[in-house]
Amino acid sequence: MPDLPAGNAVIGQSGGPTAVINQSLAGVIEGLKAGLATSGQVKRIFGMRHGVRGLVKTGSEGLVDLTGIDKAKLDQIARTPSAALGSTRDKPDEAYCEKILAGCRANDIRYFFYIGGNDSADTCRIVSEKAEAAGYELNCFHVPKTIDNDLLENDHTPGFPSAARYVAMALAGDALDNASLGGIKINVIMGRNAGFLTAAASLARQGAADGAPPADRPAPHLIYLPEVSFSTDAFLADVEAVYAKLGRCQIAVSEGIRDKTGAEIAPKLMRSGEVDAHGNIQLSGSGALGDGLADLVKTGLTPKGGKAPRVRADTFGYIQRCWPEPSPVDAIDARAVGRYAAELAARGDRSASVIIVRISNAPDAYRSDCARADLKAVARRTRHVPAEFISGANDVSAAFDAYCRPLVGDLPKLAWL
Amino acid sequence: MPDLPAGNAVIGQSGGPTAVINQSLAGVIEGLKAGLATSGQVKRIFGMRHGVRGLVKTGSEGLVDLTGIDKAKLDQIARTPSAALGSTRDKPDEAYCEKILAGCRANDIRYFFYIGGNDSADTCRIVSEKAEAAGYELNCFHVPKTIDNDLLENDHTPGFPSAARYVAMALAGDALDNASLGGIKINVIMGRNAGFLTAAASLARQGAADGAPPADRPAPHLIYLPEVSFSTDAFLADVEAVYAKLGRCQIAVSEGIRDKTGAEIAPKLMRSGEVDAHGNIQLSGSGALGDGLADLVKTGLTPKGGKAPRVRADTFGYIQRCWPEPSPVDAIDARAVGRYAAELAARGDRSASVIIVRISNAPDAYRSDCARADLKAVARRTRHVPAEFISGANDVSAAFDAYCRPLVGDLPKLAWL
Repeated sequence: MPDLPAGNAVIGQSGGPTAVINQSLAGVIEGLKAGLATSGQVKRIFGMRHGVRGLVKTGSEGLVDLTGIDKAKLDQIARTPSAALGSTRDKPDEAYCEKILAGCRANDIRYFFYIGGNDSADTCRIVSEKAEAAGYELNCFHVPKTIDNDLLENDHTPGFPSAARYVAMALAGDALDNASLGGIKINVIMGRNAGFLTAAASLARQGAADGAPPADRPAPHLIYLPEVSFSTDAFLADVEAVYAKLGRCQIAVSEGIRDKTGAEIAPKLMRSGEVDAHGNIQLSGSGALGDGLADLVKTGLTPKGGKAPRVRADTFGYIQRCWPEPSPVDAIDARAVGRYAAELAARGDRSASVIIVRISNAPDAYRSDCARADLKAVARRTRHVPAEFISGANDVSAAFDAYCRPLVGDLPKLAWL
Repeated sequence: MPDLPAGNAVIGQSGGPTAVINQSLAGVIEGLKAGLATSGQVKRIFGMRHGVRGLVKTGSEGLVDLTGIDKAKLDQIARTPSAALGSTRDKPDEAYCEKILAGCRANDIRYFFYIGGNDSADTCRIVSEKAEAAGYELNCFHVPKTIDNDLLENDHTPGFPSAARYVAMALAGDALDNASLGGIKINVIMGRNAGFLTAAASLARQGAADGAPPADRPAPHLIYLPEVSFSTDAFLADVEAVYAKLGRCQIAVSEGIRDKTGAEIAPKLMRSGEVDAHGNIQLSGSGALGDGLADLVKTGLTPKGGKAPRVRADTFGYIQRCWPEPSPVDAIDARAVGRYAAELAARGDRSASVIIVRISNAPDAYRSDCARADLKAVARRTRHVPAEFISGANDVSAAFDAYCRPLVGDLPKLAWL
């Protein structure tokens, strides 16, 4: 048994919620109860209200005591989407992390678990370093979460498979809607810097397109990722070619598409460039990019004196990250990474980011496992869709299909006349 | 056995597709095979490609022969959302109906089945009257379908329960997303003239709100239907009151909200008033109303010199009518109305609209049955949300909850800290 400090544990949830982030919360609690709480090193298990915001509040109003939560309640919360503790968009800097450390000291926290993306890993890293410098024994663990699937070291991140499942289901239904009435349908999908979720639109095909030209692919015919530079001229030509042949065209496009200089397309097409708290243009919770692309297509594809094609745009909003029927694989993985973080703590690890490793991708035999990485390997860094998952300028590859399909679970088998 | 003509049957699908419109197609085919096709009155069963468009085409390219379709394939198509035959937005007038009648004569059609909304019922009515006037024996049946739930005589219409299920699931997840990060969330839901689908947002509450004031209701806190006149001032006051108390507010709003003069709100808030083929402003496939309402809230609720609240708008697009996991009740009802139409034909009915009647609404004992109505009782008429389903200016009643809940099937049981 390693020499471990005795005190309390705290768990927080950060950033955009997912359908399974509460599985990770339940996993950490379960793992602590099976380990450090049994051996006596962890006395109380606290939850932070709205992430680190809860920890920097004076008094205990920002913390909720989860020590005595019963298993039935915990299981029900685990099956509930979104962050049960509340979440935050705060990205702590050095000064903020000092306050977090003070909050840990004030509550005798010796085990710090933070469920989130690369910013949350960075928070763990800074807090861990500050604690060490101050000679305060604090063990810090990052538990991965993000629908964007953009954490390094991970095969995939909890939250992504469920969002990918939603996108695949939505595109599958929408493809048939588009086929039944014709016209051009644009679907704008979340993922500002990484196109994994937009790529998952391809799973609606019930098989890889294997490099077929756009009009010969099963829908979606065109997929645009932020990793591939976007040109409005090429976009119009792509759409026109598919529409001319089929009388319809289904498109999946990432909210984060960029031109060849790396500049985002959205602001160029948007009414007003609204800027959020981090200085970013607001892409989600607004139909502006979709409507802008639709206007572009209507203007570009209407023959002189002729009738505009039927063009519709749907912007997939928050539902893609909180749909209450998660991918079964995702629910299991998200629980496992939480439990594993508590196990790392029990083994005497001082700080780590839990990662997911794929053990087997044999057909019908997908298996994954948890492992550890150093916080700095994950913190603040972004994983992008790799080249081998991309096919040409407007599609994904068969390799992406093989990678992603086991994650989303069985999809309905659809048939058509 | 009634004296029935011998010839062919034709089935078409019209208007916006639904998740279960193919169940009705399968139902008509099954019903014909079990009745008139066995007795010899129906020789061939045709499907119209893209509704009546397929029937007015010369030659047979607009028709598909479904006589020999096997049961396994038919069942798979029935489980597939959207109109497998293709759909159309055409609303036939007298001249168009003459062409339909000519198409029927050319293909020896004696049984005409049209799956759609009140316009489709009207097409059946006109074609039936023209056939009678011409002395051509043609039996015409309307099979109900619309996510808007706006057909008279019907307890509910096939397609609505599945769309309502999607809306309830989406609002349930979104409510927790809104709770975890705070702010104001606007969800724009389909249903231009009838608010049933928007009302279904209330099912996310897992129980009726029983007349509680907005901030004391489980989310969604505010529900705006086209049947209740909408004032932007009252809307802002409603949102402000909830937000002031809770730091968040979840809103469900119909795309068809109108002011006290009956004028639609959407065009007043939209960038450009796009007009569709029927002279209507395009509400779906665009985020414009949601973004306009969000702008209104941001402008109206930002304190002088202060920070704007976090406001997000999602416009529920085509996914709400084509999500590939229907309500189980809906799938059964949609199959039943199709079969019943074929049975009416076998009984010698000359023309009718199939309707759904609720037999029992006892808890856990919901049952419905099919019946007939005259085409003119359904054709071109619109059912609105009745007064007893509405509660005040921004909510629905417990009676609506009791009406709607059995239709959508079991919803996930969610829990929160």
